[in-house]
Amino acid sequence: MTPLSVPQTDQASTVRVGLDVGGTKTDAVALDAHDSLVARIRLPTQPGAAGVLETIRTALRGLTDQCTAGDVRSIGIGMPGQVDPGGSVVRHAVNLGLQDLDLRDLLERVTAVPVSVENDVKAAALGAYALRGGVDEALGYLNLGTGVAAGAVLNGELWRGSAGVAGEIGHLSIDPTGPLCACGQRGCIEAYAGGGAVARRWGRPGAGAVHEVFDAAEAGDRWAQRMRGEIAWAVASAVRVLTLSLDVSTVVLGGGVAALGGRLLDPVAEVLEQEAKASHFLASLRLADRVETLPAGSLAAAFGAALVGQRPH
Amino acid sequence: MTPLSVPQTDQASTVRVGLDVGGTKTDAVALDAHDSLVARIRLPTQPGAAGVLETIRTALRGLTDQCTAGDVRSIGIGMPGQVDPGGSVVRHAVNLGLQDLDLRDLLERVTAVPVSVENDVKAAALGAYALRGGVDEALGYLNLGTGVAAGAVLNGELWRGSAGVAGEIGHLSIDPTGPLCACGQRGCIEAYAGGGAVARRWGRPGAGAVHEVFDAAEAGDRWAQRMRGEIAWAVASAVRVLTLSLDVSTVVLGGGVAALGGRLLDPVAEVLEQEAKASHFLASLRLADRVETLPAGSLAAAFGAALVGQRPH
Repeated sequence: MTPLSVPQTDQASTVRVGLDVGGTKTDAVALDAHDSLVARIRLPTQPGAAGVLETIRTALRGLTDQCTAGDVRSIGIGMPGQVDPGGSVVRHAVNLGLQDLDLRDLLERVTAVPVSVENDVKAAALGAYALRGGVDEALGYLNLGTGVAAGAVLNGELWRGSAGVAGEIGHLSIDPTGPLCACGQRGCIEAYAGGGAVARRWGRPGAGAVHEVFDAAEAGDRWAQRMRGEIAWAVASAVRVLTLSLDVSTVVLGGGVAALGGRLLDPVAEVLEQEAKASHFLASLRLADRVETLPAGSLAAAFGAALVGQRPH
Repeated sequence: MTPLSVPQTDQASTVRVGLDVGGTKTDAVALDAHDSLVARIRLPTQPGAAGVLETIRTALRGLTDQCTAGDVRSIGIGMPGQVDPGGSVVRHAVNLGLQDLDLRDLLERVTAVPVSVENDVKAAALGAYALRGGVDEALGYLNLGTGVAAGAVLNGELWRGSAGVAGEIGHLSIDPTGPLCACGQRGCIEAYAGGGAVARRWGRPGAGAVHEVFDAAEAGDRWAQRMRGEIAWAVASAVRVLTLSLDVSTVVLGGGVAALGGRLLDPVAEVLEQEAKASHFLASLRLADRVETLPAGSLAAAFGAALVGQRPH
């Protein structure tokens, strides 16, 4: 692949590219100088280091074919798993078969464009913040996928923490006698609301288990209704954690489970409202009013990755 | 009282004053331009709006009598209870019998010096950060007094949240079947580790109940040992919350209960180490290494209040 371009001093004619590299598919977007979407593409993710690199290069070609807006100024990549705070190295991404991959270095060599790598949930948090107009003093983003993790944007900046662990609230226990979590603890939020844990307890593996549970619950299945109640309670607990620790004014739910939209939001709001009836303190926080979901198929993570791409080395 | 002074342009000869107005006693400090302590005083707090004002004025007189360093440049006040984010109005301070008191306005009128009011736990968080040398990218402060609440200093700035609720982690539930909390929920961290809750369960009211429980536990009392175990577990849970939500590198324990020092720290570290044995994830976070206590009688809250006093209106 030939270098895409050298960044121009005239930034008005350049685009910033963001990619959300998921376990099965990759979304890529190009934003102009006004943060408007000028190109987008979705393609299947190929696994392994070589596969991921090829996926990214194919996505970049697809975007530049669509773009007449100008040169690529920066590339931001949202990756699942653990990304070093420096924005360069993917430490572990189990679903993609990656370990200790300096993705920034590899990509900068072939593209000659500044690259920044970020955890996908953190990128989605920044994207959700930007898509809401950048107005929230403190925004929490709760990703409900195979696992459960959060991101926070405080005063307009992504909060990464002292070692990139910020937002791992899926592994806070809400019941010491609860189900065993993959992390070794009991009763973690993720052990109730994570897609992987739900699939194991539902007895049918696969990404669609949570949707199946909701379908069955709505059809009257008692066990599914109980699981739905526990999912809603765990999501409500995560909303409480984000509000009482960080005092976020908004919690945006995203990820595959959040694609349930109102079917998820309604039982979560019901739990929060029941809890508020028992507690003046919780009632004063109006938690149910703070929660919303991303629309299904939202490009928040790719959008946020494009914004992360501006990050200085 | 006559005005203390008008702030001078030569800041080298001025002091910043900080007060920690507690339910029973008030600590006041004066810091020079290098943040060094040049005067301190401790006196009993008088209740009610008039009593608190008189206490503050007496403390200010005591400090200025000791200070030859120069004029008072700013006054910061740490107050228990709910303080509006603007740094002016004490909304509720039940123990002091205050409600909707614009303490900044009242004090600025009598002193002619810029005043800023802050919740005492948040002030102590800033003080703990400064007393550790201002080196922590992310520091959590956990106040263990009658109640349990936290403060966080992120990138050198006190994090107040969108509505001043940040850090109210004492009211996160860690067991849905746990004891009823004063807030109406069950199994809150505060319901296990708050001095007020411990006194109720121990059956002997008073500020010293937690110390009595620890004395009895060390003397072999089984019930006290069980309570001590629950206190340690709840404090460990709060450490987990601060780390997994904010990724603080250090959690400083303060407040009356933390004056137990190693007698508290050892069982908390033991809980964290036991949990790490069951969870690779928790083990990787090395939580036990992140926790420390303030020395008994620490002036962190008054010190932090002096730093808060610099806050622009």
